[in-house]
Amino acid sequence: MAQAAYYEGGRSIRLGAGERVTPGPGEVQLKISHCGICGTDLHIFHGAMDARVKMPLVMGHEMSATVHQLGAGVDGFALGDPVVVLPLAPCKDCPACAAGHSHVCHNLNFLGIDTPGAFQSYWTVPAYTLHRMPANLALKHGAMIEPLAVACHDVRLADVRPGDHVVVLGGGPIGMLVALVARHAGANVIVSEINPYRVELAASLGLEALNPEETDLVDTVMRRTKGAGADIVFEVSGSQAGADIMTDLLRVRGLAVIVAIFAQKPQIDLFRFFWRELRLQGVRVYEPQDFADAIALAASGALPLDDLITDIRPLSALRSGFEDMEKGGRVMKILLEI
Amino acid sequence: MAQAAYYEGGRSIRLGAGERVTPGPGEVQLKISHCGICGTDLHIFHGAMDARVKMPLVMGHEMSATVHQLGAGVDGFALGDPVVVLPLAPCKDCPACAAGHSHVCHNLNFLGIDTPGAFQSYWTVPAYTLHRMPANLALKHGAMIEPLAVACHDVRLADVRPGDHVVVLGGGPIGMLVALVARHAGANVIVSEINPYRVELAASLGLEALNPEETDLVDTVMRRTKGAGADIVFEVSGSQAGADIMTDLLRVRGLAVIVAIFAQKPQIDLFRFFWRELRLQGVRVYEPQDFADAIALAASGALPLDDLITDIRPLSALRSGFEDMEKGGRVMKILLEI
Repeated sequence: MAQAAYYEGGRSIRLGAGERVTPGPGEVQLKISHCGICGTDLHIFHGAMDARVKMPLVMGHEMSATVHQLGAGVDGFALGDPVVVLPLAPCKDCPACAAGHSHVCHNLNFLGIDTPGAFQSYWTVPAYTLHRMPANLALKHGAMIEPLAVACHDVRLADVRPGDHVVVLGGGPIGMLVALVARHAGANVIVSEINPYRVELAASLGLEALNPEETDLVDTVMRRTKGAGADIVFEVSGSQAGADIMTDLLRVRGLAVIVAIFAQKPQIDLFRFFWRELRLQGVRVYEPQDFADAIALAASGALPLDDLITDIRPLSALRSGFEDMEKGGRVMKILLEI
Repeated sequence: MAQAAYYEGGRSIRLGAGERVTPGPGEVQLKISHCGICGTDLHIFHGAMDARVKMPLVMGHEMSATVHQLGAGVDGFALGDPVVVLPLAPCKDCPACAAGHSHVCHNLNFLGIDTPGAFQSYWTVPAYTLHRMPANLALKHGAMIEPLAVACHDVRLADVRPGDHVVVLGGGPIGMLVALVARHAGANVIVSEINPYRVELAASLGLEALNPEETDLVDTVMRRTKGAGADIVFEVSGSQAGADIMTDLLRVRGLAVIVAIFAQKPQIDLFRFFWRELRLQGVRVYEPQDFADAIALAASGALPLDDLITDIRPLSALRSGFEDMEKGGRVMKILLEI
């Protein structure tokens, strides 16, 4: 039976009957396999995006599925094909779309936030959002493609090169994936994280990880780089402490990459930007190339994706997933099997 | 008779006998012609850099001169040659120098700040700092080369292209030169400035200038760019208001260039950097190429340099120059004729 998890405001999640939307021309109905819980979903659960979302909302955008029904005019997919969705529907009419940056469209429809998502049995989406999964990529790993594509986008825009000294501030799921993708690109990576479980997990993946409250991060990086500083810092913590230390860490003309969503405007040392000719770049979601890169990288087996999956639970456990994420502690990525 | 103006702390300027330092190997003694008063000189006069400077200090680094005496081993210059000085002496040993960014050397000696400058009759400097002035460039215009090289550096690093929509926040000497160089590079430029005299001066130079307290700058730029936003914003005001509006003005992936020296850390809308994938770049001083560009541009006659020179006074009027700059009002660049 088709089911769905509905966010109804005020930390309420209701499990109910799912809809089966008949795919129109150019659309595809998917049967969802797995869907990860994103920090943005937690944010919505907290009510922080109630002004944006329409309730009841089916969240979920980190998913894998098989093709279940094809709308008219959809070529290139067959029933049963394993796929992932790049969950962005741009307007194709705004200045950002016109400039070729439709992933940050001024009127972007983010599937699973602005319109229904994948915390349900069947999901009907535009066919242009689909990316095919190779046969050797497991469906549970397919649910990691969306966050991995974020990391691929961030590392690509930062132009990480072999031998670069990279610091990742914040070792949650996105920070960890950024660190792994940057290392795969040949960088020397340090992950800075205050949660002991995440420090330990990063270390178990062969990443150098430290707690900046216990170890002097700036001193460590300066010793490592003979006083020059880091080439690139990924700010994934969204904190004033992260915003402070990123400018201290960077070499002359080094790059701060803003991955985190800052709820408050932090104070930034613009004098240091002037003094060292530092650079900063905001990065958001991904482009189709990043999805392709993420799928290829995941399918290659080069990344320890299983180690990032804390638990796989049924759809009915969405609420418990949110609660475990809130507690912090020993949590990385929680997947739901639909 | 050789004279010099000495800063002695506590807003004190003393006019006294100038030294004539015999040039050592690789050095040249110059006879100073003109020297402009920089905002940094005013900052020193205010005591804000007393921890850095050694008193008594001869300030001055925006200068023109003729070659007066050659040290051993100096080739390529003859007595009487008109020259300007690129007033940076890097250590050649730090990570910034090793990476080819000696203009922002970790141990930079800025001539006229860290060691004596050009508010004196004779000035002995390393020969490698000299740039030859073409015969058709007036010595008074030579004193504009140093700030013009700042503008050339800023516009070059921002990669201003023909047709770009550029906003310059702050219409002082540097902001005005940035606007003129950006326009010369083919950009559509708006200068934002609250001082009515500077707005009027910019307009008289054919620049579009507005007072953001009277005209809605964001609305103006959005109408001009069909809702896209500016390609590049030069922040030359050093104010929280400037830091606020720069993120509102920029198009997706637009660039904020930090030219100003921010004495306080402003709050920055990093969410907007994320949301629009904005970029930011700090820029400081200049490289030899920028001096060459500035000299060629000034000699071409394409810039209205005379209109930026408010007054030319004797060295003894340095103090009155500072006082007029403090008052604000109808002041752009004040030169001293030595």
